[in-house]
Formats: sequence, C-alpha cells, structure tokens
Amino acid sequence: MRIVADGALTEVEALSLGILGGTGDQGKGLARRFALAGQRVLIGSRNAERARQAAESIGHGVTAGENAEVAAKADVVIVAVPWDGHKATLEALREPLTGKIVIDCVNPLGFDKQGAYALPVEEGSAAQQAAAVLTGSRVVAAFHHVSAVTLLDPEVAEVDLDVLVLGDDREATDTVQALASRIPGVRGIYGGRLRNAHQVEALTANIISINRRHKAHAGIRITDV
Amino acid sequence: MRIVADGALTEVEALSLGILGGTGDQGKGLARRFALAGQRVLIGSRNAERARQAAESIGHGVTAGENAEVAAKADVVIVAVPWDGHKATLEALREPLTGKIVIDCVNPLGFDKQGAYALPVEEGSAAQQAAAVLTGSRVVAAFHHVSAVTLLDPEVAEVDLDVLVLGDDREATDTVQALASRIPGVRGIYGGRLRNAHQVEALTANIISINRRHKAHAGIRITDV
Repeated sequence: MRIVADGALTEVEALSLGILGGTGDQGKGLARRFALAGQRVLIGSRNAERARQAAESIGHGVTAGENAEVAAKADVVIVAVPWDGHKATLEALREPLTGKIVIDCVNPLGFDKQGAYALPVEEGSAAQQAAAVLTGSRVVAAFHHVSAVTLLDPEVAEVDLDVLVLGDDREATDTVQALASRIPGVRGIYGGRLRNAHQVEALTANIISINRRHKAHAGIRITDV
Repeated sequence: MRIVADGALTEVEALSLGILGGTGDQGKGLARRFALAGQRVLIGSRNAERARQAAESIGHGVTAGENAEVAAKADVVIVAVPWDGHKATLEALREPLTGKIVIDCVNPLGFDKQGAYALPVEEGSAAQQAAAVLTGSRVVAAFHHVSAVTLLDPEVAEVDLDVLVLGDDREATDTVQALASRIPGVRGIYGGRLRNAHQVEALTANIISINRRHKAHAGIRITDV
C-alpha cells in the first residue's frame, strides 16, 4: 500500500491503524484518540484476550487481536510496546510488517531516585533499531511526547501539543503528519531524519522532569511554524 | 555571590551578565536581548578589539573585554563559544569562573549534506563537559534553542519560545529561569538535571530540520505549564 504525497492529507482517513502493545496506557490512549477521530483502529497484544479487553474498554469500534494478526491486517502500524521487548517483538513481526509504514513511539528510558534518564541504544534510538530490524518497512518515529493520561482523559477535548514526525521517507512522514493532525488540537510536524530520533525520544525524560516540578502533563509546541 | 531561592526573581535584575564568545551571532543576540531588558551585559572574546566592536554594534550600554576579564567581572557568565574551542576555553577560565553561575548554551552539532546531527560528547553533553571542567562553578544549561536571527531582529519585540533550564543546583536553575524570563515573550522553565542535557542540546538539530522545511526560525513552547 502506497499513498502518493499529494494525496496524504485526503486519503489518510481511509487507513486502518494497528497498535502493537495497545494494552499499555500509551497504546490505549492513542487508540482512543484515533478512534474518536474516525480512524479504524486495531489493538494488538501478545495476549489476544487482553487486547480484546482493552478494545472493549475503549469502545468506539476498536477491534483487537494478537500482535501478528494486527500487524498483518492494519494499513499503518504503531509500535507502543515497552522498550524491554522492543527488538524481540519487531523481529517476530518482520514478515507481516513488510511494505508498511511502521510508527515507532517508544522511549528508551531508565528511572532512578533522581527521575528519568535516557538509556543508551546500540542503534542510536528505538526508531533506528526498528529500522535496522524492519528493513522492508517504512519506519517513522512519532508520538513520543503525548501524555497517556491526557489521551485517556475524557475531559480533554483537544490535545495541546505538536507531534514531531521523523523519518527518511518523505511520503511516509507526510502520511504520519497527516495522521497525527487527525487528533483535535494536534499538529504533526516534520522533525528531521531518523538519525536525529534519539534526542526526541530522550527528551521525554525532560518532560517527565517538567511534569514532576509542575504536577503537569506537559507537551511541546513548535513556534514560528 | 549567592542568591537565595526566594529572592531569585527580584534580585536577578541586579546581576551583570558576561557572555563568552559574545562576538558570534548567538552571543550577540543574547547580549542584545538582555541589554534591552535592562541587564548589565559584558561581551567577552579572545580578542578584546573584536569584543569592543561587537559591543558597539549592539549599543544599549553593553561593554566588552577579553574572555578572562569578562569572566572575572561578571556575576553570571554565559558560555556561547563554538563547540570546537569549548573545553579549552573553559579550562583557561577555571579560576575566574569559580563560585559563579555558568550558563552553557553550546550545541555540539555536525553538518553534512543531510543537515545537522548531534555529535557524540565524551562527558555526555557540552553542559556536562563544562561541569567536569569547572568543578568550582555552578553549571546550568540553557538558551539552546533560541534563534540568533530572531534575537538580532529589531522587528521582533517578543521572542516566542520557552527556554529549558537544566542543572543540579536548584538555586542556580531558579536564578537562570528568572534571567531567561527577563526577555519579553520568554519563559524560563526547569527542564531537568544536567544528565539530561544531551538531548536538549541535540534537539537543535531537529529544530534546524524544521527551519529548513518551513523556512522558519522555530522554537519550542512547553504546554500545560
């Protein structure tokens, strides 16, 4: 499935979205917002029953399945698994993800008494690890800074942040920018090539520091754009 | 010189600001904005004559001197030298910088045909390198994302961005937040500990990507704060 660049904004509504690791808060939050925006959403999990429960808790027509099934069925796939199982999960899904846009939103972070910090990643970043494993897919990095709490909060009608979209495939980043912009309040903004994904993932540690200081659910906006 | 945390916001106006490498665009831009805000500003350079010329081009009472002289005279010192000479410059200024708040705003970046990318830094980041060299100073990281073009633009009355302020010394980060907020439009926001400075510095590569795509001078704002 390929989407021509000029058509990205209009055709994106027809794309089904699979969310691997969709039973976590981040995955559920994204599933909820995209379903509310009218997108067809499939939640994936290693455990089909847990996926089904998550889909049911969200409602809005969200369906469920095992990760491999969702990876095969969905047009575009969001990877929202814990960093811990990131590489192994993707290695097992190389075949069904071939040719697809794969959106990695995983933040490799450690936590100690002083808060969050960025973990070193051999490939440079989670997104570059995904690209190294999924050589037949079109890997894009996005949705790193969206607060799961905000996404899941029924009181929040508009999500007040920009989503940085990174990748080396212009058509794919255009599509993901358009997808991100489907969530009310959100703008999808091109944020550079995959080699610059590390700092976007790692910045989540700083956002966590801000949240702790201000008891907030901070996001970022890009000015002058 | 120490500023009590509670007094940071009121006493910060009295602080003189030295800017090392103040003849570059970033240094000149910060000098201009702080002088306009009523702060006493000293521009430093390896070459006193070049510093004098830069100060004269800015006006607003900005004075000049060699780096060592400015480091000795100023209450708070901003390091705006090129990454290339960062370590050597600071090693030569250990003594005059002792006991002072030193604000590092240096972004270690490389450039090639595909744009900007983050350079690896042995200490983790420019700010951590500064802290490793200046063991007697109070090192804070800030002002990484401010566009020199915007700072120097006489048409821009308010600078539309937040300045992330990082450091391990609460009193020092409070003071630098208050200083940043002296520039109309700017908010100084605590952004975490020095160990999380790398990604803030490196994010400048992404902002450069955004600027190229949009022909903009992008900055970031923190939402929900």
